Amino acid sequence: MKSIELNISDAIGFVGEEKFKGYEAEAVKGISNLNNGEGAGNDFHGWVKLPEEVEKSGIIDEIQATADKLNSLVDYVVCVGIGGSYLGAKAVIEGLSNSFEAYRKTSKGATVLFAGQNLSEDYIAELQEFLKDKKFGIIVISKSGTTTEPAVAFRLLKDQLEAQVGKEAAKDIIVAVTDAKKGALRTLATQEGYKTFVIPDNVGGRFSVLTPVGLLPIAVAGKDIRSLVAGAAKMQEETHHAGGSNASETYAMLRNALYNDGKVIEVLVNYNPKLHFFGEWWKQLYGESEGKDGKGIFPASVDLTTDLHSMGQLLQQGKRNIFETVISVNQPDRQAVIPSDALNLDGLNFLAGQHVDHINKMAELGTKIAHVEGGVPVIRIEIDRLNEYYLGQLIYFFEKACGISGYILGVNPFNQPGVEAYKKNMFALLNKPGYEKESEAIKAKI
Amino acid sequence: MKSIELNISDAIGFVGEEKFKGYEAEAVKGISNLNNGEGAGNDFHGWVKLPEEVEKSGIIDEIQATADKLNSLVDYVVCVGIGGSYLGAKAVIEGLSNSFEAYRKTSKGATVLFAGQNLSEDYIAELQEFLKDKKFGIIVISKSGTTTEPAVAFRLLKDQLEAQVGKEAAKDIIVAVTDAKKGALRTLATQEGYKTFVIPDNVGGRFSVLTPVGLLPIAVAGKDIRSLVAGAAKMQEETHHAGGSNASETYAMLRNALYNDGKVIEVLVNYNPKLHFFGEWWKQLYGESEGKDGKGIFPASVDLTTDLHSMGQLLQQGKRNIFETVISVNQPDRQAVIPSDALNLDGLNFLAGQHVDHINKMAELGTKIAHVEGGVPVIRIEIDRLNEYYLGQLIYFFEKACGISGYILGVNPFNQPGVEAYKKNMFALLNKPGYEKESEAIKAKI
Repeated sequence: MKSIELNISDAIGFVGEEKFKGYEAEAVKGISNLNNGEGAGNDFHGWVKLPEEVEKSGIIDEIQATADKLNSLVDYVVCVGIGGSYLGAKAVIEGLSNSFEAYRKTSKGATVLFAGQNLSEDYIAELQEFLKDKKFGIIVISKSGTTTEPAVAFRLLKDQLEAQVGKEAAKDIIVAVTDAKKGALRTLATQEGYKTFVIPDNVGGRFSVLTPVGLLPIAVAGKDIRSLVAGAAKMQEETHHAGGSNASETYAMLRNALYNDGKVIEVLVNYNPKLHFFGEWWKQLYGESEGKDGKGIFPASVDLTTDLHSMGQLLQQGKRNIFETVISVNQPDRQAVIPSDALNLDGLNFLAGQHVDHINKMAELGTKIAHVEGGVPVIRIEIDRLNEYYLGQLIYFFEKACGISGYILGVNPFNQPGVEAYKKNMFALLNKPGYEKESEAIKAKI
Repeated sequence: MKSIELNISDAIGFVGEEKFKGYEAEAVKGISNLNNGEGAGNDFHGWVKLPEEVEKSGIIDEIQATADKLNSLVDYVVCVGIGGSYLGAKAVIEGLSNSFEAYRKTSKGATVLFAGQNLSEDYIAELQEFLKDKKFGIIVISKSGTTTEPAVAFRLLKDQLEAQVGKEAAKDIIVAVTDAKKGALRTLATQEGYKTFVIPDNVGGRFSVLTPVGLLPIAVAGKDIRSLVAGAAKMQEETHHAGGSNASETYAMLRNALYNDGKVIEVLVNYNPKLHFFGEWWKQLYGESEGKDGKGIFPASVDLTTDLHSMGQLLQQGKRNIFETVISVNQPDRQAVIPSDALNLDGLNFLAGQHVDHINKMAELGTKIAHVEGGVPVIRIEIDRLNEYYLGQLIYFFEKACGISGYILGVNPFNQPGVEAYKKNMFALLNKPGYEKESEAIKAKI
């Protein structure tokens, strides 16, 4: 099978080969840091060798067996998690599902629903109402077990499940993915006898999709996790060494060159709506890794050609502070061919007999030419098919590039100190025990 | 009923009252232009008085009757359109629907599906497969009838529908929303005898949600379009005169002041996932109106608290080129209260008895304080409930502000010349008749 293809020929001209090459030494150093467990945040380098390790361990079989058991017992599995404990699974499942899966079940696994990813009272109430007469199980994913959003959802759903099937039966259809030893969820899981999986200490949330955090819900949804990991392992191998053929290195260097040239916004572009949530996963990966110390590219995403009819005007002629990274899928899975029409009032007969994807590809090419001429650098990444193997490649490609890119930018790509600020204020406002001083201080402010 | 409340106290300090006031003269002139049909793009000012006109005309009854008829005949209505012929209806329907509507029908109308908003072969093929054994109708929305994406989808779906129910029966369940007199879709509709509605000549796509373009699919989905228009009419009245109480004027002035102060990205924030697609509608409105002549704020959107666990780090500590506009819904529609737990391992018992929405509100307040302290101006817009009336208010508020804001920025907010560039290239690449010279030229480039 092929590897992803990175094409920078429509972007590098905006900065020039020399400026681009200027980032090589830092990129080489970044790769060396990642491969050798050195550099800022090196206690969170566990994802670097993860694909290979996952393949070698028996964990895939254990995850698959657990997924199969859940699927034999329930029709719906609610995946409770937020951030990295939500986006990776959501991105892969949506990427591989029928566009109308919610309206009519076509996959072999249970239907995976998500909770604990917001604090919307309407959302959780509507979910609970929906589940009233359903056979459902829960995968609860939290390192600590005390992150507010998933903890609130899990309390409500656990109560409901125990009320619907009884406390004993519930234990068999709740799976916890959590810290190996410590934390509220580990304690609860031990006490209740839940099946558990471990979130490795050295893998941060946004890099965790290839741990049980992502793999378990993806397996439940009936997707081939072995193939997903194999794709990632392929890219682990390909991006190990620095040098011209390392696509992650090239992408990391180029985006830093563009950023320092005033391109402060990167727009991840797809031409396949199934990749919408892959964009959301990517936004966390890059936004959280690089958006710190007053620095960082602002990551945005668009679904084209849909958004050519909304963001297209601005992309073409707006402020020239943007570059694009296009993910293009070479071959569609289905077939739809333009029929001929006797009247031809819409003038489309010149396309009769053509596949819709051919028009999509010409839209992509036409857009690239137009945007480049309009002053927008366009990086292109092609995958052959939208399947587990190529999604695994994309995931690892972007992860490795993100680590390198963050090191070039001069930040610690593996921490997220800013995420605590709102939580601290929220706890103070909610009078959480232990936050008495903060409560007093914040109430004086408002 | 209340009006939306705009609060700028956490944003204006970043630019100062004086700079803010500096935009007043231009804002007043902009409002005068809009009210009097003057200024750049004044042939597209039809939306300004639209709510009042729609209320006075009999069009709401006609739309409702058409929706009722469709709903009596079919279970699914495929709405075929792109850009403004897609986003407004999608935003309102999603804003007012049960979060799990796709999994279990709860609304009284037909299920509205969308097509023609992309060129994905998988998407259209999967839609066609889904519809094979369904009773479905079509609303096709296109000014010209030749826009590629909807034209391709309509060809395929019309063929399918005629094959499933026969050509005669199909005519009764296809409705065209198009130009009053000219264009391919008007010609076809006349020939086939489709029920039609008119897209007014003086209303651009992104301002068209309160015409039949948006109102018909929204009515089909079982939502109260009279209330939607009433909310908009209320804001039409409130934003008519310039002056301190005109929320649209204030918002338009402030965002220009922030933009000229280096805040080149505006993030529209919601704390209710049902408003996700409202953000997409808003991105078209502002991106397409202002992103031109090398100018314009880059519009992005986030769903919080979800995205505090992805974009939150960057919002808190990244490059300080961002401001936020928060839409907050005062009251949820459903109830979910945190239960007490004997073990309290998750430490949430301090919240027992509290509504989930209360935690959401404290998350919002805590985030606002954290982001403002982190250097991000935060504008806040509050609506009392997420219903038709307040969505109507929000729509008109943002439309009026967009017109004013574009005039302050010094662009024509009502054209979109840049959207043609990719289309021209695509037609050339597809060898469309009439594009022979362009075909030759573009093939020399690639």
